[in-house]
Amino acid sequence: MKIAIAGAGAMGSRFGLMLHKAGNEVILIDKWTEHVNKIKEVGLKANFNGEDIVEQIPAFFPNELEGKVGSIDTVILFTKAMQLDDMLQSIKSILSKDTKVLCLLNGLGHEDTVKMYVSEENILLGNTMWTAGLTGPGEVKLFGNGEVELQNVYSSGKESGLEVVKVLSEAGLNAKYSENVKYSIWRKACVNGTLNGTCTILDSNIASFGASKAADEIVRTIINEFADVAEKEGIILDREEIVSHVKSTFDPNGVGKHYPSMHQDLIKNNRLTEIDYINGAVCRKGAKYNVSTPYCQFLTLLVHAKEEILTAK
Amino acid sequence: MKIAIAGAGAMGSRFGLMLHKAGNEVILIDKWTEHVNKIKEVGLKANFNGEDIVEQIPAFFPNELEGKVGSIDTVILFTKAMQLDDMLQSIKSILSKDTKVLCLLNGLGHEDTVKMYVSEENILLGNTMWTAGLTGPGEVKLFGNGEVELQNVYSSGKESGLEVVKVLSEAGLNAKYSENVKYSIWRKACVNGTLNGTCTILDSNIASFGASKAADEIVRTIINEFADVAEKEGIILDREEIVSHVKSTFDPNGVGKHYPSMHQDLIKNNRLTEIDYINGAVCRKGAKYNVSTPYCQFLTLLVHAKEEILTAK
Repeated sequence: MKIAIAGAGAMGSRFGLMLHKAGNEVILIDKWTEHVNKIKEVGLKANFNGEDIVEQIPAFFPNELEGKVGSIDTVILFTKAMQLDDMLQSIKSILSKDTKVLCLLNGLGHEDTVKMYVSEENILLGNTMWTAGLTGPGEVKLFGNGEVELQNVYSSGKESGLEVVKVLSEAGLNAKYSENVKYSIWRKACVNGTLNGTCTILDSNIASFGASKAADEIVRTIINEFADVAEKEGIILDREEIVSHVKSTFDPNGVGKHYPSMHQDLIKNNRLTEIDYINGAVCRKGAKYNVSTPYCQFLTLLVHAKEEILTAK
Repeated sequence: MKIAIAGAGAMGSRFGLMLHKAGNEVILIDKWTEHVNKIKEVGLKANFNGEDIVEQIPAFFPNELEGKVGSIDTVILFTKAMQLDDMLQSIKSILSKDTKVLCLLNGLGHEDTVKMYVSEENILLGNTMWTAGLTGPGEVKLFGNGEVELQNVYSSGKESGLEVVKVLSEAGLNAKYSENVKYSIWRKACVNGTLNGTCTILDSNIASFGASKAADEIVRTIINEFADVAEKEGIILDREEIVSHVKSTFDPNGVGKHYPSMHQDLIKNNRLTEIDYINGAVCRKGAKYNVSTPYCQFLTLLVHAKEEILTAK
């Protein structure tokens, strides 16, 4: 299958690498100059479950696709949320009327952006539990296990979705077709919505935030806001199960010792955050449905204030 | 007049020093060991508008008053909010049935604590715009100008209030009798309620917070919560005037370059904050009156989480 990874950061590189190793015709697309140039020069380097490997995968900047790359069977979107629209605009030339587009970004509401460029029957929404880390331009560290689920959310047929599931699974990515991928996307957004903004503002890892007496009320209130809004979109979240799931990340011997990705973006790397696509998205949806979301709104404002105070870019 | 300053930190030392210089019989009461011992040994040192002075003012720990100090005409309360109850308990022996008690603490709801120890006709509530800084045990820096207003809020007569006003004014403290001191207390609490918690959580001075695009909505929302609750206590705050007043502090060439006292307490000195007596007090009152105060509640929780993360004491 001809596959383009649009947004070849850590996670995009993982999917690209594994799909390439499985024999697919993969290209990587990214805007990061040093990263793309390094892959063009020496290939994508990876520490893949402890083994150092290099794979020669064609890499492109978005603006050099036209004329060089023909139409693609499946595009997998893995950009940062705020770069999605720009990326879709740039890769129009490789989207044919049959190209399937699988959106695997974190956060909520990306389908509204994808719909402006791709007809509904070609859109696949997905959610993944794989992890990946960038160790430098052109270099990733990939370990552990994961899975990915996806669904044709806008069409009755699921043939195209099943075909992509097959290709992903043959590459070892443990894919499955979901009958309710939006539930999984909301559930994951609840994890990010309770931990990312708070740990960023508090400059705390997950365990230290979780150990505070205030964490229970903060987590419950934010999850209730997410669930109130999700209900208006026909998705009935199991609030207690999600509260427990979030709390399971507090273990200091497990995930808890880590700082969420938003903390790494803003506090460590001085980059703008994805808060508008997590808590901010819940506020926008809440306003539309007349559902009150004050914790999400205040947290979004605090993270934006912190971005400005640190002059993040 | 025989005056006891209960809580002789920076502000208590200013009032004590100025009242002592004006010829009153002043004693200082505080729990901070090094501070009280230093004043006992060498007197209270002050840089007073640029001039270095030392005043011999009797200083006591709360537990050594009994037997040594007789009843007092006026007690001025200047403790940290969370020490008020403990202080009142400790100084019972110097409170006679005629002792006036002037409460000048920052924050809301302290009268409920004072009422447990002092009969209503002896309680004066006040609000001050003086500033002061501690430079070390037994040493303060006092510059600039200020004022203080007070009122007998629980009795129709105002004789005792006027008497205290006279003594304070004779000491240069620019006192006046107020007909609505609770308005001033709420207005000042709005300043602290919008700036203290936010600048602490964001690790920011007032100007940097104020310059962020998010500041306007945060300030307005918090002031609306304060005003909604104040209304239930019969105090109608001028919301727009208070928003403008808060924004006037954003000037980086004025107050804006400073960090609020709560930031100094928690981030600089690793001490517990007064958040429960500012935004937290609005939440408790809001719950009583069935008024929603989500921003105050979330901010209170975030500050408490930060206290725990930093293991503040």
